[in-house]
Amino acid sequence: MSTNTINIKPAKGKLGVLLVGLGAVSTTFVAGVEAIKKGIRKPIGSLTQMGHIRLGKRTDNRNPLVKDLVPLADLNDLVYGAWDIFPDNGYEAACKAGVIPMDLLDQIKDDLQNLRPMAAVYDKSYCRKLEATHYKKADNKMLLAESLIKDIENFKTKNKCDRMTMIWCASTEAFNTVSDSHKSLRSFEDGLKNNDPTISPSMIYAYAAFKSRIGYANGAPNLTGEIPALIELAHEMGVPSSGKDLKTGQTLMKTILGPGLAARYLAISGWFSTNILGNRDGEVLDAPENFKTKEESKLSVLESILRPSLYPDLYGNLYHKVRIEYYPPRGDNKEGWDNIDIVGWLGLPMQLKVNFLCRDSILAAPLVLDVVLFMDLAQRSGLKGLQEWLSFYYKSPMVKEGLTPIHNLFHQELKLMNTLRHLAGETQITFLGLDYYM
Amino acid sequence: MSTNTINIKPAKGKLGVLLVGLGAVSTTFVAGVEAIKKGIRKPIGSLTQMGHIRLGKRTDNRNPLVKDLVPLADLNDLVYGAWDIFPDNGYEAACKAGVIPMDLLDQIKDDLQNLRPMAAVYDKSYCRKLEATHYKKADNKMLLAESLIKDIENFKTKNKCDRMTMIWCASTEAFNTVSDSHKSLRSFEDGLKNNDPTISPSMIYAYAAFKSRIGYANGAPNLTGEIPALIELAHEMGVPSSGKDLKTGQTLMKTILGPGLAARYLAISGWFSTNILGNRDGEVLDAPENFKTKEESKLSVLESILRPSLYPDLYGNLYHKVRIEYYPPRGDNKEGWDNIDIVGWLGLPMQLKVNFLCRDSILAAPLVLDVVLFMDLAQRSGLKGLQEWLSFYYKSPMVKEGLTPIHNLFHQELKLMNTLRHLAGETQITFLGLDYYM
Amino acid sequence: MSTNTINIKPAKGKLGVLLVGLGAVSTTFVAGVEAIKKGIRKPIGSLTQMGHIRLGKRTDNRNPLVKDLVPLADLNDLVYGAWDIFPDNGYEAACKAGVIPMDLLDQIKDDLQNLRPMAAVYDKSYCRKLEATHYKKADNKMLLAESLIKDIENFKTKNKCDRMTMIWCASTEAFNTVSDSHKSLRSFEDGLKNNDPTISPSMIYAYAAFKSRIGYANGAPNLTGEIPALIELAHEMGVPSSGKDLKTGQTLMKTILGPGLAARYLAISGWFSTNILGNRDGEVLDAPENFKTKEESKLSVLESILRPSLYPDLYGNLYHKVRIEYYPPRGDNKEGWDNIDIVGWLGLPMQLKVNFLCRDSILAAPLVLDVVLFMDLAQRSGLKGLQEWLSFYYKSPMVKEGLTPIHNLFHQELKLMNTLRHLAGETQITFLGLDYYM
Amino acid sequence: MSTNTINIKPAKGKLGVLLVGLGAVSTTFVAGVEAIKKGIRKPIGSLTQMGHIRLGKRTDNRNPLVKDLVPLADLNDLVYGAWDIFPDNGYEAACKAGVIPMDLLDQIKDDLQNLRPMAAVYDKSYCRKLEATHYKKADNKMLLAESLIKDIENFKTKNKCDRMTMIWCASTEAFNTVSDSHKSLRSFEDGLKNNDPTISPSMIYAYAAFKSRIGYANGAPNLTGEIPALIELAHEMGVPSSGKDLKTGQTLMKTILGPGLAARYLAISGWFSTNILGNRDGEVLDAPENFKTKEESKLSVLESILRPSLYPDLYGNLYHKVRIEYYPPRGDNKEGWDNIDIVGWLGLPMQLKVNFLCRDSILAAPLVLDVVLFMDLAQRSGLKGLQEWLSFYYKSPMVKEGLTPIHNLFHQELKLMNTLRHLAGETQITFLGLDYYM
Repeated sequence: MSTNTINIKPAKGKLGVLLVGLGAVSTTFVAGVEAIKKGIRKPIGSLTQMGHIRLGKRTDNRNPLVKDLVPLADLNDLVYGAWDIFPDNGYEAACKAGVIPMDLLDQIKDDLQNLRPMAAVYDKSYCRKLEATHYKKADNKMLLAESLIKDIENFKTKNKCDRMTMIWCASTEAFNTVSDSHKSLRSFEDGLKNNDPTISPSMIYAYAAFKSRIGYANGAPNLTGEIPALIELAHEMGVPSSGKDLKTGQTLMKTILGPGLAARYLAISGWFSTNILGNRDGEVLDAPENFKTKEESKLSVLESILRPSLYPDLYGNLYHKVRIEYYPPRGDNKEGWDNIDIVGWLGLPMQLKVNFLCRDSILAAPLVLDVVLFMDLAQRSGLKGLQEWLSFYYKSPMVKEGLTPIHNLFHQELKLMNTLRHLAGETQITFLGLDYYM
Repeated sequence: MSTNTINIKPAKGKLGVLLVGLGAVSTTFVAGVEAIKKGIRKPIGSLTQMGHIRLGKRTDNRNPLVKDLVPLADLNDLVYGAWDIFPDNGYEAACKAGVIPMDLLDQIKDDLQNLRPMAAVYDKSYCRKLEATHYKKADNKMLLAESLIKDIENFKTKNKCDRMTMIWCASTEAFNTVSDSHKSLRSFEDGLKNNDPTISPSMIYAYAAFKSRIGYANGAPNLTGEIPALIELAHEMGVPSSGKDLKTGQTLMKTILGPGLAARYLAISGWFSTNILGNRDGEVLDAPENFKTKEESKLSVLESILRPSLYPDLYGNLYHKVRIEYYPPRGDNKEGWDNIDIVGWLGLPMQLKVNFLCRDSILAAPLVLDVVLFMDLAQRSGLKGLQEWLSFYYKSPMVKEGLTPIHNLFHQELKLMNTLRHLAGETQITFLGLDYYM
Repeated sequence: MSTNTINIKPAKGKLGVLLVGLGAVSTTFVAGVEAIKKGIRKPIGSLTQMGHIRLGKRTDNRNPLVKDLVPLADLNDLVYGAWDIFPDNGYEAACKAGVIPMDLLDQIKDDLQNLRPMAAVYDKSYCRKLEATHYKKADNKMLLAESLIKDIENFKTKNKCDRMTMIWCASTEAFNTVSDSHKSLRSFEDGLKNNDPTISPSMIYAYAAFKSRIGYANGAPNLTGEIPALIELAHEMGVPSSGKDLKTGQTLMKTILGPGLAARYLAISGWFSTNILGNRDGEVLDAPENFKTKEESKLSVLESILRPSLYPDLYGNLYHKVRIEYYPPRGDNKEGWDNIDIVGWLGLPMQLKVNFLCRDSILAAPLVLDVVLFMDLAQRSGLKGLQEWLSFYYKSPMVKEGLTPIHNLFHQELKLMNTLRHLAGETQITFLGLDYYM
Repeated sequence: MSTNTINIKPAKGKLGVLLVGLGAVSTTFVAGVEAIKKGIRKPIGSLTQMGHIRLGKRTDNRNPLVKDLVPLADLNDLVYGAWDIFPDNGYEAACKAGVIPMDLLDQIKDDLQNLRPMAAVYDKSYCRKLEATHYKKADNKMLLAESLIKDIENFKTKNKCDRMTMIWCASTEAFNTVSDSHKSLRSFEDGLKNNDPTISPSMIYAYAAFKSRIGYANGAPNLTGEIPALIELAHEMGVPSSGKDLKTGQTLMKTILGPGLAARYLAISGWFSTNILGNRDGEVLDAPENFKTKEESKLSVLESILRPSLYPDLYGNLYHKVRIEYYPPRGDNKEGWDNIDIVGWLGLPMQLKVNFLCRDSILAAPLVLDVVLFMDLAQRSGLKGLQEWLSFYYKSPMVKEGLTPIHNLFHQELKLMNTLRHLAGETQITFLGLDYYM
């Protein structure tokens, strides 16, 4: 597996980044990239920009930058497009989000101001808490999809893009499950024409992306890329799909701490997580149907990491509770508090409390950058359909049917790194290292 | 590397476990093993007893117990010996330590009461805070070593041991650095005869162990197994050596959280760690010279995980401060509080606070069990000298000169697991998994 | 006001303590009193047993015990009665509650075993989560009240009580508001006969108490003692009434911290409080209608302490959110986490986080003792109707119409202490103290 | 005591505020006052500016502003002077302190820039960590005092002050105890002339203030106002003296929480407090001799509040430990973490953890304002010598010999408020309130 049989196309020309949603995350992403290009900020948080990768033996001291190992799009080649349900331009949206300090915002005002959102696909039943003012009207969902496809074509032409990729950076949709319409491409397209209510806006975006032969990354916990109809379409069009739900904040912590406790075979009797956040995301999640979508995404990680079926004595009775609380005084600053009840040797109890004062968009923005660049790499490498190697970025990694997803951040990291080594024809790292001592 | 060329001797007969120090950790270890044998407790915290190991592909669903993959000593074959500077038997020592609940202690009283410590090697200059009452008197350190060797022989004969291993479970010694006497076996033996003050009690124990052809594991941060003289001796006698400083509590957390933050390329500007603990360990560490030994062990982990030389923008200015505070109200219950100052995208600050209400001996005891069983496995497998694959258990893993130690708990875990797979002739796991999708 | 014009009857003979509910709080209260009487525990947490009171000038050094200043019932004179919706005796109930350590429970087993509950008044609509098995059946609520009155008479005769007092120690009832039936004694008695659904079990207990000329203390946030009908009856019968909702845990902290921040004129923009608890109380509060009762009680304290109408710039925009989460791993150990967003000089933000690992029944039990003894003191002192001076013990102090309740713990404490001084004919303490310097 | 016999002179004309030290606290104080005068900030944190005071009965609804009850200097009448060991003007000093946000600083730049410090009195042995560049040179300490007196006269003339007051806002001096020179005014003046090393800079400032017939407030824990020589001088000159150590941060919390736990008679077995701070204050306190001064001030509060001699069962074995850690990443943002081990009913343990993310200067600045205005009020009211009624503001209130200081924040608050009521001829508030029910 160490010989490179993969022919990766070079990353030449413009890469169009199509953002679904122009809110806190999208504007923070764009602002950061522009600030990095101007040299006034470092790309902190981004593996593609900062990460080194160890190659060969420890004693070889080969640690090139990831971006020197595989061909990635250059930041100077990115051009942005966006859809949003409000007409605010990027600068106005960033001001409302309140994430970016004013002195920085002033320096990149023009870049953001020029980013004007296209009219969005909107369906009130999937987002009861927000009142859209800037959206497409059409008689059926197929027409909405076609309107998006036209938007994409226009964007490509206007911006002279060589390649494009789309990523959902909008709020969480209401809870949804796989319906008959989702089960095949044909039934899905019928559903689009018939305005099937189980087809959500995010599915329409993904459909439009794949039809336009561009990849789609799902930054929220919406049901989108994993429905059979869209998997079928991605394969048919030869494009990558990844998701879902960018892993930040408390769940990131959970996939760091969970593997740590599991590595030590410490039992866990309870894990209580509460979050307070005050931005638009928090407002949307105040609606039970949207919270349910998020909750499912947040609850599943522990089971996969701890495997209670394999370890019933350790994790069979784990009581896991997750709460998200809308709390306006906090603004975009999110805060998580976790209480973890641990049981150790002799059955004796211990406790771990974690208080994470974090910032949602600050944690998410560099992931958007990495995902966009890696989706583009995947497409140029001929990888199509679900991109499990990008699990590292997601709360709910999508995997092929029959596989259990990997939530352990460190296994995800190794999967990502070994995939990059594989793409570059380098040896897999196993950490065995007995040979140093032989 | 997937074909087993290793011939592991079977784990038949009694395994003698020689404990240096019969305090909280040792008695909790023995109490737990006896409670497990009686079926009144589960071996929570022990990889060798509870751990499953994935073999082959994810879809193979092969997850045997570790102890079914490689031949480990059975708990029923363990017999314990101990040295201590106080004459209390195991039951008395356990009562003073106050770790084990009374109702459990009553059920294993006999097992502990029969464990009477042999007179210890003691040197006041290495442990100023404790006043020993039960120790060997001799004209020089070589005579002390010979006395230990005789103890070992007697123990083996009396208990009909097939194999033995020794592990340091006593308090931290005063700070020490490599001296001329430490640099070769010959100069070391001269030093023993001449009472060189740089030769500490722990070195005398390790010398006695190796001379008796048994492995030595270093559970404390003392300077012991890494001095050239003892590495030379271990190789000469063909025995394994591992260490040092069992990784529990706050440092365990640090090697879980550190890799998590580093995986996300989040910058860290400060990491402040304070500990409060009230047991004998805390009292000993109240002496600056002993704290210094511990501090060095605790401070080094972050540098190795974060690699500021590779990531100067992220970790070049990290201010790392570690405090240990003797606080009697807490007893054996240790508590750590960490404040971590993080910097993310756009240079914006975030904070992470971790409060770990843990119990030192409860976290350490299962590690003692695992280390003992794996040291025995190593010796039966013909692995001699430093056992880097056991880094997983230690705050300051000892490695071959020229290698940098691995502190990342997850890399350590993978190293351990892949070593076990290697010993058993199974394929290395790399988490690549692209083949599922091809 | 410094001359004692109050004639307090002596505390001679037996005092019957009638407990509504024989769960965690009641059994912990009884267990503690019995352990104190046996000399195996100290009365920690009880002002009546431990408290000293300063009299006169600071330089006088007069600090007698409170119980030496005013005549209180002796612990040896207490006899207990109880009603419960389950037939378990005190020992069985204590075992289920899991609050009292086994070794202590063994020493007071007989005292608890002899406490067998009388059949309770039960109404499923006020406590949906519990399925009662031990309750009175009668055609209307007046007959239930009469059955209680008979219970009280029997108890008094059988136990040769000189005096009695009743206290609600059961779970929180469903949310209730003042109805027409509550507005006068006449309409209330009609309601009892007509089975008015707005008359809750707690009201029936209080009615029975007052009709029996004994005081009633309300340990839960139920709507009871403050309805006009019961105020009228208490005055008519000349008995004291106090309440409501024993102040423990997070709200106790809130009435400590709130006054502290207010004393410093620090603005508060948000106060988020979450609680995790796993006992029967937590289970009952998992029902929204019961939580609402508790939430009202918990939310009101800050407004009264901070007075946003007087301080709109400081507290006019305070976002206050309280959550209670049922979390079984915690058992009777309750845990609160508070995040307080403070704004100071120059409008700059600060944060305060409070994590209280407490035990509900342990905090409540000594308050039950104090309230019982002070209610008896009030009755012997001729104080009737609402006892505002006992506000110190309650989350939602009941006050005369037209007065605002005092929630500041320190104002409540001063009110209590100055009332005791007043009852004993001692000078009020004002802390002025300028005379020392004149 | 309710008839006003006190004749308070009106607050007419300019009030000179003489600041010893022009660092973070002083500049934040001045900046805030100027911002308030310009109407761009509210005087959050200041009792004199924001506080209302209840007068009469609760039903009277009389809650005037404090500043409407007693005559206080108007903010528009304040003029500032300062001494510092560095020559930076107020704007430069504020920039270095980094407390005030840049956008605010810009709006008050002129006010701060005009504030140029006079050369300070400096003695390296009292502040080893800072290297002064702007200080008075003279042959003996009496000459230094006379230089200060001249500074004061010049300042008064130049600024046309009607009255003046001095307050120490500089760093903590090295630990000092009462020496022979401190015991009488005569020996003190001899000491000044003979350069007695036990006479610290702060004593020289206070001496100069009193000799100039102006009050001196001690914002740090230095030994100053409580030495007999300076008490004697204050009385002789008829001026007020108050101190010491402005109560902010963790100690503020301690005097809020301590009284709360004590009010409930909860035992405390341990209280561990650690602080991390990164400003100049933290750097100075990194020197053991300066930390000792602070530690004494911090440790004493609990003993006075909890009174272990009266409550040996509750507080006789309290283990109290306080740490201050210099931690540069935190800058002026101070952070305290407290762990409090509580014991309740039945002797069962509970824990309270408090994490206070505060800002030293933001908490201190409004106290400077209040103290300055109240010192001026005291002087106009004829109150001379120690002003115990200002204990509310200090960590270590100075009291008359023979009195124990009051540390309970709420008793301090009542003392302050009742003193104001007394000065204004209003009735003392006792919170008795039984009359509402009679």
